[in-house]
Amino acid sequence: MKIGIVTGSVVATRKVESLRGERLLLVQPLGDDGKPSGDPLIACDTCQAGPGDRVLFEGGREAAMALRHAYNPSDASIVAVIDDVVEEEKL
Amino acid sequence: MKIGIVTGSVVATRKVESLRGERLLLVQPLGDDGKPSGDPLIACDTCQAGPGDRVLFEGGREAAMALRHAYNPSDASIVAVIDDVVEEEKL
Amino acid sequence: MKIGIVTGSVVATRKVESLRGERLLLVQPLGDDGKPSGDPLIACDTCQAGPGDRVLFEGGREAAMALRHAYNPSDASIVAVIDDVVEEEKL
Amino acid sequence: MKIGIVTGSVVATRKVESLRGERLLLVQPLGDDGKPSGDPLIACDTCQAGPGDRVLFEGGREAAMALRHAYNPSDASIVAVIDDVVEEEKL
Amino acid sequence: MKIGIVTGSVVATRKVESLRGERLLLVQPLGDDGKPSGDPLIACDTCQAGPGDRVLFEGGREAAMALRHAYNPSDASIVAVIDDVVEEEKL
Repeated sequence: MKIGIVTGSVVATRKVESLRGERLLLVQPLGDDGKPSGDPLIACDTCQAGPGDRVLFEGGREAAMALRHAYNPSDASIVAVIDDVVEEEKL
Repeated sequence: MKIGIVTGSVVATRKVESLRGERLLLVQPLGDDGKPSGDPLIACDTCQAGPGDRVLFEGGREAAMALRHAYNPSDASIVAVIDDVVEEEKL
Repeated sequence: MKIGIVTGSVVATRKVESLRGERLLLVQPLGDDGKPSGDPLIACDTCQAGPGDRVLFEGGREAAMALRHAYNPSDASIVAVIDDVVEEEKL
Repeated sequence: MKIGIVTGSVVATRKVESLRGERLLLVQPLGDDGKPSGDPLIACDTCQAGPGDRVLFEGGREAAMALRHAYNPSDASIVAVIDDVVEEEKL
Repeated sequence: MKIGIVTGSVVATRKVESLRGERLLLVQPLGDDGKPSGDPLIACDTCQAGPGDRVLFEGGREAAMALRHAYNPSDASIVAVIDDVVEEEKL
């Protein structure tokens, strides 16, 4: 899982049946230093996350496991809204 | 899921049985700024997308879930035609 | 799916049972401009492709779906021999 | 599997049901030379690993296989605490 | 599948049950020119490979298909020891 921040949403009328009713959020992955790292992606929401929330998101087949339909074609899901990141070991 | 734009199609006579009847579209992934980012890929169409359409596409095993045969070997599918992207949080 | 060109083959006597009888071809991925892009990989053949053929290949779990044994450990398969790529939208 | 070092943990109250009870650890991947390489990720713990431990972690669908719920949406798990890495071949 | 060379092994006492009895080998991926390319990874052995052997290894869910337990959490396996690579097409 990676850490990202919700920055917006996507509106799509024509979509595959199994994505109907899912909220599609725009997520910007964050790097080591808490700054944007890499291209944004679109993830299905499972935690009522909103713009500005720091979230844990997942990629690949397992993302769909978090959704109502396990055979959903989604390849990215938000699985937690982060309260805090505790760093104990300095490298 | 990532955002891309349909730029063309692929013609292939010799192909695996489970890809017969699927439209194979050429998709250029788009980055943060809406400009091309990375190499184009070939995705199966599920939404009657055409050249110039901005689409959501997916990679990995879940891509096949969007197709008629779930055991299709496809590793990329177009799952939505995008109407609008709403950015609410500026980073 | 990505576009690549078949450049050779791999000979291996000691291999896992489920790969026996599969042809292992060396594939060079091609980028946007039709030039080599990234490291070559080894893919199982399903379309009687040969050296010089431009092919569609797939990665991940779905690659095995194209083979005789769906529980094959292969993570890359050639699923089509390309006749033509039609680019309609210029970016 | 890749080698990483545990550097901290993540606290999340709102999360998907199947992640409840799993410890979410912050892992920094290590490169060839034992130095940090790439962005940190969040992995579920299966070996009572703690900050400073050098661990083997896994990504993708197989990560969930190590957890109590195989249909867990986790895409990264710690599967071993490393005692020693023996390098026998110099490149 | 990719080509790599076995450079050593990993010793781990605390590990998930399904990895017990599997040999964990250190593999350095090789690029186009036969030189090291990218970070080394840890793969389960299925072919009695040893240090110095050039091998085919696989990543993702399919890697576990090569092992005794298909629900093994491994995400990388050695599936063949390479005898020869025949390059027929020059790019």
